[in-house]
Amino acid sequence: MTLETISTAKAHGGVQGVYRHASAETKTPMTFAVFVPPHEQGAKLPVLWYLSGLTCTHANCMDKGEYRRLAAELGLIVVLPDTSPRGETVPDEKDNWQFGSGAGFYVDATQAPYAENYRMYSYVTKELPAVIAANFPADMSRQGITGHSMGGHGALTIALKNPDTFKSASAFAPIVKPSVAGWSKPALEKYLGADETAWRAYDMVLLIEDGKRFPELLVDQGEADSFLTTGLMPELLVDAAAKAGQKVVLNLREGYDHSYNFISTFMDDHLRWHAARLKA
Amino acid sequence: MTLETISTAKAHGGVQGVYRHASAETKTPMTFAVFVPPHEQGAKLPVLWYLSGLTCTHANCMDKGEYRRLAAELGLIVVLPDTSPRGETVPDEKDNWQFGSGAGFYVDATQAPYAENYRMYSYVTKELPAVIAANFPADMSRQGITGHSMGGHGALTIALKNPDTFKSASAFAPIVKPSVAGWSKPALEKYLGADETAWRAYDMVLLIEDGKRFPELLVDQGEADSFLTTGLMPELLVDAAAKAGQKVVLNLREGYDHSYNFISTFMDDHLRWHAARLKA
Repeated sequence: MTLETISTAKAHGGVQGVYRHASAETKTPMTFAVFVPPHEQGAKLPVLWYLSGLTCTHANCMDKGEYRRLAAELGLIVVLPDTSPRGETVPDEKDNWQFGSGAGFYVDATQAPYAENYRMYSYVTKELPAVIAANFPADMSRQGITGHSMGGHGALTIALKNPDTFKSASAFAPIVKPSVAGWSKPALEKYLGADETAWRAYDMVLLIEDGKRFPELLVDQGEADSFLTTGLMPELLVDAAAKAGQKVVLNLREGYDHSYNFISTFMDDHLRWHAARLKA
Repeated sequence: MTLETISTAKAHGGVQGVYRHASAETKTPMTFAVFVPPHEQGAKLPVLWYLSGLTCTHANCMDKGEYRRLAAELGLIVVLPDTSPRGETVPDEKDNWQFGSGAGFYVDATQAPYAENYRMYSYVTKELPAVIAANFPADMSRQGITGHSMGGHGALTIALKNPDTFKSASAFAPIVKPSVAGWSKPALEKYLGADETAWRAYDMVLLIEDGKRFPELLVDQGEADSFLTTGLMPELLVDAAAKAGQKVVLNLREGYDHSYNFISTFMDDHLRWHAARLKA
């Protein structure tokens, strides 16, 4: 596979790059960002995946996430994928920010016309990791995953289904039960069909009910988040985890909203959480 | 004067806000950003001004400058003004990114039709400080100033002319001699007229030659900056300062470009530089 370099810049002693490749999964060009910290020649570094939320691309966290200073210090590669396939050939609902472009929900769609391109689960868990392994100084035996909102949903569902791949998992303000939340339920129905049993594989609460486990999940949630009670509902995760014996650390943060002002504030905590597990 | 709050969000324990007011200097609405760190009720805090570069608004550094974590720790208010007046009524050259909107160069224009609105020197040194003093917990006896590129020019020329107002001054990749650099000379001519003696008040090298002094200036400059040799030319500042006995610390940074990847990397150093002088 050919990797096109869109830009690279030195930052905090490492390199912040933006790249593009032709994805076999989505059948589109896909753009992603990678930060490689300063390191010794030949070293292989642990990898932290950050999955973004609705409407975002790789660029939101790259610009506003404030991860480079500490990732450089801790020696973490940080990978920021896009949130969906994009382009003229990709079916979309242009006026709907909760579906289609920017709203892939990290699922493999099974329904026409979306099944052809919307394969973000396989893209993020299989295709892009192979690209990272082949092109960056990455130790793929040490991967962690985090994300925000829709990407927090993506991160924790992927971790629960792939506990052998990931050593650490966390989320900022995740959508914990997309099968019931108003902004995600219509998307799951369009991507996966009306039979809700197919949705269980993409819902962290239902995955835990169905027996999936991960050593420990870290969640930060702002209490002034305007989506807290209708779209995010972290208490549903805490309840399901308590019943199932799944360990969850939930930090409610007084006064913080859903924006990168919140994410960047607690980014250091999450980087240290992952580094402690990836470098153990 | 009435201050309109456009947005506020908790960040790193403080508040990142965006505000708008009707400016008497520019005769337009002006937008600016202020970060207020966590502080005790009634406390008055030192203020650091950050002046942005060509094409920027208050938002570039707010989004990508990575100043909040350490400003919160050090207890610094950070103020980010816009770089020019804007609006339908403001004379502009729409296709010229080096003049007009986004390119006020921190001068008080004297030439028609620009003199009416392009009063960024007085706006930044008089009008906006009064707004800050009236609306934020600011100790105006402890102000520092920094900036990037065109804003680095702004910061150091303003400091040299106002050594009683500012206790600390620094710049990221400043335009050190705008009277000769290709991207600034045409702008000075349009704002200030063909008589180059009027330009001397807005050129740090010429201000130093003309006897202006500031206790100590800090400059960081990326060596991979594509504007280094044609537009920035820090050696002209070093030479002028050496001849005049003006103290300048110039840090050349191997591999860094002109972007916020560079600025955010060295932001901590500059915040500490200012805090050491503002809190002494």
